[in-house]
Amino acid sequence: MTSTTRETSGRPYEECGVVGIWGAPDAAALAALGLHALQHRGQEAAGIVTHDGERFWQHKGLGLVGDVFSDARMMGTLKGKSAIGHNRYATTGGTLLRNVQPLYADFEFGGLAVAHNGNLTNAATLRRALVKRGCLFQSTTDTEVFVHLIAISLYATVLERLVDAAKQVKGAYSVVALTPDFLIGLRDPLGVRPLILGRVADGGWMLASETCALDIVGAEFVRNVEPGEMVIIDDEGIRSLRPFGKTSPRFCVFEYIYFARPDSILEDHSVYEARKQIGVELARESGVEADVIVPVPDSGVPSAMGYAAESGIPFEMGIIRNHYVGRTFIEPTDQIRNLGVRMKHSANAPALRGKRVVLVDDSIVRGTTSRKIVDMVRAAGATEVHMRISSPPTRHPCFYGIDTPEESQLLAATHSVAQMAEAIGVDSLAFISFDGLYRALGHDDRADAEGRYCDACFTGDYPIELVDKEGHLVS
Amino acid sequence: MTSTTRETSGRPYEECGVVGIWGAPDAAALAALGLHALQHRGQEAAGIVTHDGERFWQHKGLGLVGDVFSDARMMGTLKGKSAIGHNRYATTGGTLLRNVQPLYADFEFGGLAVAHNGNLTNAATLRRALVKRGCLFQSTTDTEVFVHLIAISLYATVLERLVDAAKQVKGAYSVVALTPDFLIGLRDPLGVRPLILGRVADGGWMLASETCALDIVGAEFVRNVEPGEMVIIDDEGIRSLRPFGKTSPRFCVFEYIYFARPDSILEDHSVYEARKQIGVELARESGVEADVIVPVPDSGVPSAMGYAAESGIPFEMGIIRNHYVGRTFIEPTDQIRNLGVRMKHSANAPALRGKRVVLVDDSIVRGTTSRKIVDMVRAAGATEVHMRISSPPTRHPCFYGIDTPEESQLLAATHSVAQMAEAIGVDSLAFISFDGLYRALGHDDRADAEGRYCDACFTGDYPIELVDKEGHLVS
Amino acid sequence: MTSTTRETSGRPYEECGVVGIWGAPDAAALAALGLHALQHRGQEAAGIVTHDGERFWQHKGLGLVGDVFSDARMMGTLKGKSAIGHNRYATTGGTLLRNVQPLYADFEFGGLAVAHNGNLTNAATLRRALVKRGCLFQSTTDTEVFVHLIAISLYATVLERLVDAAKQVKGAYSVVALTPDFLIGLRDPLGVRPLILGRVADGGWMLASETCALDIVGAEFVRNVEPGEMVIIDDEGIRSLRPFGKTSPRFCVFEYIYFARPDSILEDHSVYEARKQIGVELARESGVEADVIVPVPDSGVPSAMGYAAESGIPFEMGIIRNHYVGRTFIEPTDQIRNLGVRMKHSANAPALRGKRVVLVDDSIVRGTTSRKIVDMVRAAGATEVHMRISSPPTRHPCFYGIDTPEESQLLAATHSVAQMAEAIGVDSLAFISFDGLYRALGHDDRADAEGRYCDACFTGDYPIELVDKEGHLVS
Amino acid sequence: MTSTTRETSGRPYEECGVVGIWGAPDAAALAALGLHALQHRGQEAAGIVTHDGERFWQHKGLGLVGDVFSDARMMGTLKGKSAIGHNRYATTGGTLLRNVQPLYADFEFGGLAVAHNGNLTNAATLRRALVKRGCLFQSTTDTEVFVHLIAISLYATVLERLVDAAKQVKGAYSVVALTPDFLIGLRDPLGVRPLILGRVADGGWMLASETCALDIVGAEFVRNVEPGEMVIIDDEGIRSLRPFGKTSPRFCVFEYIYFARPDSILEDHSVYEARKQIGVELARESGVEADVIVPVPDSGVPSAMGYAAESGIPFEMGIIRNHYVGRTFIEPTDQIRNLGVRMKHSANAPALRGKRVVLVDDSIVRGTTSRKIVDMVRAAGATEVHMRISSPPTRHPCFYGIDTPEESQLLAATHSVAQMAEAIGVDSLAFISFDGLYRALGHDDRADAEGRYCDACFTGDYPIELVDKEGHLVS
Repeated sequence: MTSTTRETSGRPYEECGVVGIWGAPDAAALAALGLHALQHRGQEAAGIVTHDGERFWQHKGLGLVGDVFSDARMMGTLKGKSAIGHNRYATTGGTLLRNVQPLYADFEFGGLAVAHNGNLTNAATLRRALVKRGCLFQSTTDTEVFVHLIAISLYATVLERLVDAAKQVKGAYSVVALTPDFLIGLRDPLGVRPLILGRVADGGWMLASETCALDIVGAEFVRNVEPGEMVIIDDEGIRSLRPFGKTSPRFCVFEYIYFARPDSILEDHSVYEARKQIGVELARESGVEADVIVPVPDSGVPSAMGYAAESGIPFEMGIIRNHYVGRTFIEPTDQIRNLGVRMKHSANAPALRGKRVVLVDDSIVRGTTSRKIVDMVRAAGATEVHMRISSPPTRHPCFYGIDTPEESQLLAATHSVAQMAEAIGVDSLAFISFDGLYRALGHDDRADAEGRYCDACFTGDYPIELVDKEGHLVS
Repeated sequence: MTSTTRETSGRPYEECGVVGIWGAPDAAALAALGLHALQHRGQEAAGIVTHDGERFWQHKGLGLVGDVFSDARMMGTLKGKSAIGHNRYATTGGTLLRNVQPLYADFEFGGLAVAHNGNLTNAATLRRALVKRGCLFQSTTDTEVFVHLIAISLYATVLERLVDAAKQVKGAYSVVALTPDFLIGLRDPLGVRPLILGRVADGGWMLASETCALDIVGAEFVRNVEPGEMVIIDDEGIRSLRPFGKTSPRFCVFEYIYFARPDSILEDHSVYEARKQIGVELARESGVEADVIVPVPDSGVPSAMGYAAESGIPFEMGIIRNHYVGRTFIEPTDQIRNLGVRMKHSANAPALRGKRVVLVDDSIVRGTTSRKIVDMVRAAGATEVHMRISSPPTRHPCFYGIDTPEESQLLAATHSVAQMAEAIGVDSLAFISFDGLYRALGHDDRADAEGRYCDACFTGDYPIELVDKEGHLVS
Repeated sequence: MTSTTRETSGRPYEECGVVGIWGAPDAAALAALGLHALQHRGQEAAGIVTHDGERFWQHKGLGLVGDVFSDARMMGTLKGKSAIGHNRYATTGGTLLRNVQPLYADFEFGGLAVAHNGNLTNAATLRRALVKRGCLFQSTTDTEVFVHLIAISLYATVLERLVDAAKQVKGAYSVVALTPDFLIGLRDPLGVRPLILGRVADGGWMLASETCALDIVGAEFVRNVEPGEMVIIDDEGIRSLRPFGKTSPRFCVFEYIYFARPDSILEDHSVYEARKQIGVELARESGVEADVIVPVPDSGVPSAMGYAAESGIPFEMGIIRNHYVGRTFIEPTDQIRNLGVRMKHSANAPALRGKRVVLVDDSIVRGTTSRKIVDMVRAAGATEVHMRISSPPTRHPCFYGIDTPEESQLLAATHSVAQMAEAIGVDSLAFISFDGLYRALGHDDRADAEGRYCDACFTGDYPIELVDKEGHLVS
Repeated sequence: MTSTTRETSGRPYEECGVVGIWGAPDAAALAALGLHALQHRGQEAAGIVTHDGERFWQHKGLGLVGDVFSDARMMGTLKGKSAIGHNRYATTGGTLLRNVQPLYADFEFGGLAVAHNGNLTNAATLRRALVKRGCLFQSTTDTEVFVHLIAISLYATVLERLVDAAKQVKGAYSVVALTPDFLIGLRDPLGVRPLILGRVADGGWMLASETCALDIVGAEFVRNVEPGEMVIIDDEGIRSLRPFGKTSPRFCVFEYIYFARPDSILEDHSVYEARKQIGVELARESGVEADVIVPVPDSGVPSAMGYAAESGIPFEMGIIRNHYVGRTFIEPTDQIRNLGVRMKHSANAPALRGKRVVLVDDSIVRGTTSRKIVDMVRAAGATEVHMRISSPPTRHPCFYGIDTPEESQLLAATHSVAQMAEAIGVDSLAFISFDGLYRALGHDDRADAEGRYCDACFTGDYPIELVDKEGHLVS
C-alpha cells in the first residue's frame, strides 16, 4: 500500500454525505448501508468510526462504499453500537487517504470523531490563524479546522467546546460527531445543507444527509435537524441546543434541482415531486412545438416527465445512459478523442430520427457536455433540438459545498441565453424562471420564497459571508 | 498477481459480447470502446487481441472494460489495425483469467484468435471425443472446443478448417476470429445470437454483437451478418460463405425483451420500440384500474412507458435504482439480512403512497426479487400492487447463451399464474400473451411469427438439438 | 487503497534509519539508495520528502525501499536537490501509512519535514501536555511530538524553534529536518544513536545513520555529527550549534554488537572489527574443547570468525539461512507447527554430524529461537552444543530505540546463566564479560569505558531519564 | 487481476525446483514448505496441485513461495493427502501466470498434473510436430510438450503413456506427476538434474529436487531417484520402472559449484563439503601471496573458507551482501547509473584497506559483475586483488536447465585467462583445474571422473543431443 505522490498543499472543494448511528447493534453495518444510499453525494472515498463503549475503531478507504466495506472480517472489527460515517467526492486530482473522513483525534477529555458535509467559508482564514498559533495541519479538509478549534477551546466540556468552535466557523455545513458519551448532529445557522433525524428498528437513532439513507435500513423519519440546531443523542434520548440563537433557514435550492436523490424528502418536500413540478412549470413557461420530450438521464428524467405531462407531447428515452463506467477509463488517443466519443450517453436513434426534440436537463455548467449531447441527438436524426433547463442559468460558483467551476468557466456567466443557445447548437433554449422554480416548490412566486433558500449559484446573492474569498487569495 | 484457487473442472454458462475490427488505426481503442458499449452483455472480464501485420498482441483482465483497458501505456502495446474483443459474464463462481476470451492459439499455418457469444449444445460431447483423441483442454470455455476442431481439421487452409469446425458444432453462437490475413464473423445457422456489420470512419470494418457498439465509435451500420453466414473481411473488402447451405432464422426473442441495450437495432427492429410496444399490448390485454404505472428500473422502463401511454394512467418513477453497487459488497450480518435490505432498488414513497400501483417488469425468474420489490412498494404505502410482465412466463432454461437457472428453480415452471401472484404477493399478475408479444414485434399474431424466433425459454420448443443434455450428464 | 482497521490509539516502539541530502541533483534517488543501504534498520515502511526550491514533494509507502521507490515516473515527481528520508520498523501490529515518516507540516514560516531515529523518553508526558493545550495528534510517532513543539514555540525563526523543541525533549534521537532554506542534523546530548556527515560527488552534503549509506552512493565520509550537535547545511556550507552546551557521549554499545551493518564505521570503530574482536575475547574467556565453531547467521558470523581464529578450532557454516522469506508467510497448521519448522535457518548436517559444536550468536532475548536452533543442531548429529554469546546477558529493555520485549520476557532477567543453559538445552553457555566487551572496543577494561557508552540493556544503568516510565502509565 | 500484455510467442529457459507428496495429511503445506526450502532454484512463481481422493485443487501465483502460499483460507482449499509443487525462474521478461507449473490437464482416463525441472532439447522440434498434428499450445513451457505427448499416446494406461512420452523427449529433466491413483517421479536417462526420495513423519512419501526440502519438514532421506528411473508411489508403497533400459549417470557438476543449496546432499555428496574442498584444491593449485581471503557472498563463502584453511591466510567477510532487494527496484537515472551503484554488494573497507586480497567466487559469466566487485574492492583500499574461481572457465551455454547467456556473451568463450584478468581488472586470475575439481568431488583426477558428470558448460561436451539447436532455429 502506497500513498500517491503529490504536492503537500492544495485545498479541494468537497461534496459529501454523512450518517450517524446511536444505540443500535451492528452500528457499522447500518452506517455502511446508509452511506451506500448516499453514494450519489460522493464516490471517491468512504470512512466509518465506531465506538464500542471502550474504544474507537475505524476503517477508511478510497472507492465506493460497497468496495470499502465489503469484507466481513473487517466489518467485524468495527465494533459497537454507535458510529459515524462519511462519503467524499473531491474535485481536485489527489484524493488522499489522509483526507478521508471521519477525522479522529485524541483530546484531553477523550477521543472525538467528526465528519461534515459542506464548506466553511472562513476555513483558510481560520487555518492561517491556527497555524500561527502553532496548530499542525495534516490534511486539507475543513473538518480539521473545526477539530482544531475544539482542541484549543478554553471551555471545559466537549459540548461547550463544540459550541465554541461552531460559533467561530462560517459556512454551510452539516456536522456529525461521535464521543464515547453521545452522538452530535449540527446544522449551520442557515441550514444550507440537509440533516435528517430518524429512529432505527430497535430503539436506536440515526442521523443522515437524506431520508433515502433512513429508508435503506428501514429507519423511521422523525424530523429534520433544524437550521442552527445542535442535537445531542445519548442513551437518555435526544436534547437540543441552539448555539446561534434564532436563525432563519436558507436551504440549498440546488439539492432539489440536482444533488439529492429523487426518492429523498428534504425539508418536507419530495425531491422527485419538486423536479416533476419544475418540468410542469417549464412547459407552461417555455412551450414549443415538438414531437418528443427527451430527458438527459438520469437527473433530467422527472422534469422531462413533468414537461411531457403538461405539454401533452410524448416522453421518450431518446438518450441511454451507460452506468458501467468503472473507476478509471480508457485514456483516449487523439484520434479517438476526435470521434467525440461519449462514454456515458448514447442516442437511441429510433426515438429521435425525424423528430423535433425537446431535451430536458437540470443545468448548463460549462456547456461542453450539452454541446456534445446536442450534436449526438442531431446526428441520430433529430430535425430540431430545443433545450429546456430545470434551473435558472448558473452564473456564480457555489462556496457552500456543491462542486462548481469558477465563474469564468460558467457559460451563463459570460453568455446571454441567446448566445448560449448558439454555443450549444440548439434551435431554442429556455431556463426555468425564478417564479416558476419557486412555484414548483410550493410558493406563490419568487417574492414569496424571498430569503428562504440559498440560490446564490443563480443570483450571486450569497447569504453567508465569503470570508476567505474577500480576504487574501486562498493559498 | 495470483490465480484464484478452485477445482480444476466445471463448465460455466456464459453471456457475452463480441467485437471485431479490420483496417482501422487504433483498432484496440475502437474494440475497447465497442466492448464498453456492450458491457451489459458481460461484466466480469474482458479481453482484446490485436495483430499489427507481424505479431499478435493481447491483454485480458477481470473486471469492467473501462478498468481493464484504462492504462495508456498498455493500450499502446496493443498495436495494429485489426482486433477482436470479448466481454464475459460467467454464472459459476470461479471467473478465471484462463477462461477470459479471446482465446489465442498457434497453428501450423500461423496464429488465430477466436471469441464467441453463445453456447454450443454439443460442447461436452465434442470435448469428450477430443480429449479421447489426445486434445488437451486448459479452459472450460466452449471456444476452446471450437479452436481444437480447427487445429485437428485435415483441411489445408484456415478458412476451410473454420468451415470444417463450424459444421461440427451445434448451438447458438456468433463467432469473431482474427488471423494475420483476415477477420471472420460467423453466425450459427439459426442466427440465434446477433452479429452486426458496420464501417468505421476511415474505411475500416467493424463487427459487433449490437449496433450500440457501432454508435459509440461513430461507425455506420451496414447490415446484419445473416444466420449461417460467414463473412471474411480483408483489405480487398468483404466476402461471404454459407457453410451450412440455406438456413432459416430463429432469432432470440429474449434479446428484445431484456438482454440487448434499448438503443440497439436487432434484425432491423428497434429494441426500445419493441419494448414500448409490448407495454402497449400488455395494457390492451391486461388493463387494470390503477393510479400509477411504475417500472422496475432499468429494463422495465420502456414497457412501462408503453403501458402508461396506452392506458392513459400516469407513468411514475416509483422505484429508484442505485447504480453504485461496486464490485463487491457489504456481506450483511444476519440482523441486517433480516431488514430485507435492497442494495439496488429503493421505493420513491411520494410517488407510491396511497396509490394503486401497476408494476411493469421484464420477467419473473425465481420470484424472490419480485417478492422483495412488491413488499417494498407496499411498505411505501401503495394500496394495491398489480404486476405486469413484458414476457410470457419463463418456464424453461436457456441452453443458447442466456444465463437462466435450471427448470426446478423457475417459478413459472411449477406455479400457475394465480399461484405466482400469491407467491410474490400482488393483487393481480399478468404476462404478455404470445400473440401480444409477436404483434409488438410486427407480426399479425403468434402463428404469423411461427418458426421465426427462438422462444424456447417460454415454450420449451428448442430449435437446436440439445446434444449434451440428451446424452450423458455433462461432467 | 485502504487503510488497515485498527484501534485509534497505541504507541509503537520504533527502529529506524534516516538520511538527508542537500545540494545534489537527483536528491531523491540518492536518498532512496541511502535508505536501501540502511534497510536493516527498518523494513516495514519508507518515505522521502524533497524540496525543489519552490515546493515540497513526498512519497511514502509500506514495504521495502526497493519496492516503495521502484517506479521511475514516481521518482521523477520527487523533484529537487534536497531531500530527507526514513526507514521504519514498528514493533506493534498496525503499521499505518499515517505513521510513516518523514512527517511534513505547514507552519506559519513555511513547510518543514522531519524524521528521526530513536525514542523520546518523555514523549507521552509531552504529548499529554500538548493535547491539554489543544494540539491535535494524528499519528502515534514521537516525531509528531517534536513537530508540535516546533509549531507552538514562541521563537521567531525555525532554527530557534528547533532548538527550543530540542531542549524540551528527552531521549535518544538522531533527527534530520528539511526546510526550503537548509537541512538540519541533530543528535541527542548523549549521542546514543549514530548520525554521520558526508559529501556527495558534486559538492552536495549527505547525512545518514551509518557510513554504509554513504558508501552506496560513493559519498565521502566527513565526520560524525557530534553528540548534542545541531548541524545546519545550506548553500553556504555547514554551520554548527550546540543547543545543550557541552555534553559527554554515551553511544549505544548494542549498535556494535548487533544493530548496525558490519561494513559501517561508527564513532570511528569498524563494526565488523569490533564484532570479530569480541569473538576473540570470548574465545579467551570461555574456551571449550570443540571440533567446530558455527555462527548463527548472519549477525553471529564475525564473532564466530574471531572465536575460531583465536581458538584455532575450524570455523564452519553449520547453519544455513534462507533469505527468501517474503513479506508474509505460510500460516502453519497445528500439525506443521508441531514439526518445529524453521523458515529462516536450516542445519548443514555434514558440518555438524558427530561434532562438538560451539554456536556463536549475538544475544539471547526470550530464548525461544536459541532453543529451536540448539535442537536443530543436535538433530543434525552434533554430539555437544556449547553456546557463546557476543554480548553480556540482556536483562533490561531498551527505551532508546532498539526493539526489545519487556523485562518479564527477557530470559536473562529471570534466569541465572546456568538456568539459561538448561532452558535452551546446551552443554555450556557463556556470555562475553564487560571487561572483554570493552577491551574489544579498544579500552583497557570496563572501568576505562565507564560513562562512555549506553549499555543499559545489560546493566540497567539508564543514562537518560525515563520520564514516561517513571510517571503515569503510557496510555 | 490482470494478465500482462505481451507478444503471444517466445520460449524462456527455466530454472526450477519440484516437490511431490503422497499419503500425508497437510500435503499442500508440506509441499509449500519444501518449495520454500527450494526457493533458490526459482523465485518468480510457484504453484501447487493437490488431490483429495475425488478432485484436484490448485493454486498458483507470481512471487515468492511464502507470499503465494501465505493465506490460511486458501491453504485450506488445497485439500488432500497428495500434492506436487513447482518453483520457477524464467529468464525472459514475461513471467506469465499461464506458464506457472504444475500444468494440469483433463485426459480421457482422468486428470493429471505435471511439473518438471530442466529443459528438453527437442521441445521445439516436438512442438512443431504436435502443432502440425493439431495440438493446441497455450503456454510456452516444455512441460506442455510432455503433457501433449501423454495426451496423444496410443497406449491405454496413464503409466504406459508416461513411458511413451518419456521415450520421445530428449533433455535433462526431473519430472513429478500426480494422478488420482499415484505419484510419479522420473529422472532423465543421464540423471542430469537431481531428484530425491524421502519419507515424511507419518508414513507418507516425498520427492524433491534437493535434500534441504526434506529437512525443512523433518522428512527422512531414503535414496536418490536413479538416472532413467521412474518411481511410482501409491498406497501400496513404491515401485520402479526403467523406461530407458540401463543408463549411465552424468550428473550436473554445476549443481555442486553454484546451483544447489550448501546444506543439500546430492548424489551422496555434501554440497558444502564439495565447495570447501574445491577451495582447498584451488589454494594448492593457485596459491598467491596475500593478506586476506574474501568470498563474494553468498555462494563463494565455502570455497573461500577452504582456500583460507589450506593457505593459512585469514578468511575475512570483506564484502557484505544486502539481502533486502525487494521484488522491483529503483530504476536508476543516468547520473545514478554512472555512480556504479551496487544494490547487492558493498565493500567492508576496514577488512580490505591496505590488504592484498584474494577474492573467491564461483564463476565468471559475462564478467561485468566481477569487474564492478573488483573496482569496489580496490576503491575500498585493497592494494592487490587476486581472483580465484571455484569452477573451470564457463565457455559454453547450458541447454539442460541452468540459465546462461548465449556463447557470444560468455567472457571465457572469447578471452584467454590473461585477457579475462585484464578485462576484470585483477592482478591475477585462476580457475580450478578439471583435475582439481574432480579431486574435490572424490575422484583421483579428471580421467577418473570421465563420463560421470555433465560439465558441458566448461567443456562443450554435451552428453544429450541438442536436437532443436542443430535443426532449424527455435521460433
